[in-house]
Amino acid sequence: MESIKAYIDQNKNRFLEELFELLRIPSISSQAEHKPDMLRCAEQWKSILLTAGADKAEVMPTKGNPVVYGEKIIDPKLPTVLVYGHYDVMPVDPVELWNTQPFEPVIKDGKIWCRGADDDKGQAFMHAKAFEYMVRTNNLPCNVKFMIEGEEEVGSGSLSEWIVEYKDLVKADVILVSDTSMIAADVPSITTGLRGLAYWEIEVTGPNADLHSGIFGGSVANPLNTLCEMIAKCMDENNHISIPHFYDDVIECSDRERELLNKAPYSEEEYKKSLGVKALRGEKGYTKIEHVGIRPSFDLCGMWGGYTGEGSKTVLPSKAYAKLSCRLVPNQNHEKIAVLVKNYFEQNAPDYVKVKVTPLHGGQAYGCPIDLPAYKAAEAAYMDVYGKQPIPTRSGGSIPIIARFEEVLGIKSILMGFGLGSDAIHSPNENYPLEQFFNGIKTIPMFYRHFAELMQLERGGANAIS
Amino acid sequence: MESIKAYIDQNKNRFLEELFELLRIPSISSQAEHKPDMLRCAEQWKSILLTAGADKAEVMPTKGNPVVYGEKIIDPKLPTVLVYGHYDVMPVDPVELWNTQPFEPVIKDGKIWCRGADDDKGQAFMHAKAFEYMVRTNNLPCNVKFMIEGEEEVGSGSLSEWIVEYKDLVKADVILVSDTSMIAADVPSITTGLRGLAYWEIEVTGPNADLHSGIFGGSVANPLNTLCEMIAKCMDENNHISIPHFYDDVIECSDRERELLNKAPYSEEEYKKSLGVKALRGEKGYTKIEHVGIRPSFDLCGMWGGYTGEGSKTVLPSKAYAKLSCRLVPNQNHEKIAVLVKNYFEQNAPDYVKVKVTPLHGGQAYGCPIDLPAYKAAEAAYMDVYGKQPIPTRSGGSIPIIARFEEVLGIKSILMGFGLGSDAIHSPNENYPLEQFFNGIKTIPMFYRHFAELMQLERGGANAIS
Repeated sequence: MESIKAYIDQNKNRFLEELFELLRIPSISSQAEHKPDMLRCAEQWKSILLTAGADKAEVMPTKGNPVVYGEKIIDPKLPTVLVYGHYDVMPVDPVELWNTQPFEPVIKDGKIWCRGADDDKGQAFMHAKAFEYMVRTNNLPCNVKFMIEGEEEVGSGSLSEWIVEYKDLVKADVILVSDTSMIAADVPSITTGLRGLAYWEIEVTGPNADLHSGIFGGSVANPLNTLCEMIAKCMDENNHISIPHFYDDVIECSDRERELLNKAPYSEEEYKKSLGVKALRGEKGYTKIEHVGIRPSFDLCGMWGGYTGEGSKTVLPSKAYAKLSCRLVPNQNHEKIAVLVKNYFEQNAPDYVKVKVTPLHGGQAYGCPIDLPAYKAAEAAYMDVYGKQPIPTRSGGSIPIIARFEEVLGIKSILMGFGLGSDAIHSPNENYPLEQFFNGIKTIPMFYRHFAELMQLERGGANAIS
Repeated sequence: MESIKAYIDQNKNRFLEELFELLRIPSISSQAEHKPDMLRCAEQWKSILLTAGADKAEVMPTKGNPVVYGEKIIDPKLPTVLVYGHYDVMPVDPVELWNTQPFEPVIKDGKIWCRGADDDKGQAFMHAKAFEYMVRTNNLPCNVKFMIEGEEEVGSGSLSEWIVEYKDLVKADVILVSDTSMIAADVPSITTGLRGLAYWEIEVTGPNADLHSGIFGGSVANPLNTLCEMIAKCMDENNHISIPHFYDDVIECSDRERELLNKAPYSEEEYKKSLGVKALRGEKGYTKIEHVGIRPSFDLCGMWGGYTGEGSKTVLPSKAYAKLSCRLVPNQNHEKIAVLVKNYFEQNAPDYVKVKVTPLHGGQAYGCPIDLPAYKAAEAAYMDVYGKQPIPTRSGGSIPIIARFEEVLGIKSILMGFGLGSDAIHSPNENYPLEQFFNGIKTIPMFYRHFAELMQLERGGANAIS
């Protein structure tokens, strides 16, 4: 521990300078205009991995954005850790709400302010620097592989195929990921569950052109009114999603699991205060922690149609659009839900409009058992740095590729996140506290040490039995 | 009639050139960036009136866009016609749906294609040219005043005050307006009723920032979902507006009036075909003609919130917005309705959101009796040109200032419109058939002749009695 602390102290400024170079690249994967930035960002990562001590690093093309792969194999007999991260970021709208330039990192109040500061450039970069420390100080106890993709924020489509082709290349004993949050800066936690996701664009067409709302209003269906009505019908008075068969595959959590889950510290008053709301809204019969951890959601991510500019144009619009997302829970299949919801909207469309639903992306939910050696290694690493046992939690967020790793590679992922709830990921003014950044760099080498030890014990045990 | 026909033949190209100069000015009153265009357009009208033969014409400032006033007083004892029109136009979004440049007039298929070609530059300009004809051929039987404003599309706020100040200046026996449509090119009609309007912007605030839809989705109210639900509650299964007291002041039409109204030719199949819809949607118990003529409407003119760009950003937005309009019918007070709906939304907001409703503009409905001398003069003028008695109709559209004229000036307006339903006013590809444009210029001088005669008879009659 002292060794890594000293290493950080000596290299602090360089770490930040290197991270800032990465943050300045506006690598927004959902916007086609940023295609060249994706390539720049991948090349930057290649250079980061080589600088940190990788034996080799490559920008590997896919049908979409490239995957950056790097490795250092010190002994094929030692366990191998596969580090996963992503170099793409979310869009920055509404840009007028940012206090600084979204892609010009600034340090203020002990935090780095920039799009990607936490999600996931800042968190993934901790692994590069922890790796550098272990290489340069001869403290690396495992083989290491890096796999950094550029489409996490749009569903990891290319990486999903890439891992099929490169299954042997990325062979490992565990996947280590920092792309989640801890409960609080002094309450470490490890994410053991992730919600899945299904996402659609809904297009409602009324008349074949925008109409004068006076000449036609009252006799022709308004697609915006109709879309509102269709959305309103999807949730009942208990905030239960009322689309038939939506919950069919949900496995209800056991009472024991729910009890553990609810041990996480939580103050409803604080939560409401931080969000600026007087009341919360969630499914009847579940706690707030359960609403985001073990229950599906139904949220409009966007909606638009008609006149949205200054002033008061009167118009009966031809089209209305919505972007809809549902977070899913383990055992709900996102492809099945995508079809279910698409059919529900299209088949229940009133005859005075046409409704077209396009599934845009999705991912399965994920669960990690807490008796895995890798989980225990992570637990011990947090203990070393934070002096407290981390709480296993279920995150409401989705990292669709994590479930895919298990499906294709047969490897479990350990979600060692160092983000905080206040980091405003996906929102204006994303930030990442310097303390979390440096604590992450301290914790990661501890994980490697404990993991190598536990794996040796386990293999020793296995050898003894055979 | 032969005289005006010949005058048009000789001056046709010049008329169009002058109109095109006016159409090229992008005088969009709802967008602040077009402020200089409003002034240019007013100056252009001043020049049009002087060219046509006005004794004087002035651009008269208001708190908003100026009013253009012009007059020719030939004999104070003769009746006076006050011509009203507007030089402002609607925005042009969605601009990608236009087949030509919105502000570059083009003649194609016998029509003028341009924003404002019909509403109201084209129709108001007919009055200038009819006036020019009467002046230059010594056929003017009345005094004429022109009052052309620049805020009709945003509620005529400045003119509403201006007429209070200049009540004496604009004193007249009738107001003549071409800003409405006929049933069809071969079915002349005169609009005897106009719906009123109330218009609001609704802002729904959920959490104080855009949130990660995974981390918060399911436990925090989504303002877009909530706004959809609030809108959906405003109309019942019979398409009757369910906001309490909304219909309190509506005077139901007599059976006789409804019978006359429904005599207008109407084919539901044609109507649906022209709109590209399989079914219509309207209040139960009323015909399609009644839905837009004698019943109020409830339409979203726009709605927006969250991520509306390319791809699939997942976000739980902080804000949701809608622009809502209701068309009103005679005896509904738009100010009363504005408050009623504002209070309804704000007082029925669920406790997990904040709702703010801002009334943006409004206007009263209007009705014109068909036994007025001016109405009879208009009827006779259409007979002269079209060879058919025009049908009195109620328009679903609103010209809020018409009711205001009656309130402040005590003068009824005659709505001699020459537009057609296919003119796409307020929509992309606005157009105005040349035939309607020239027929308008022919019909207007006939109105002046009949009106002068009928007024002389009436005044003679009054004298005889006194």
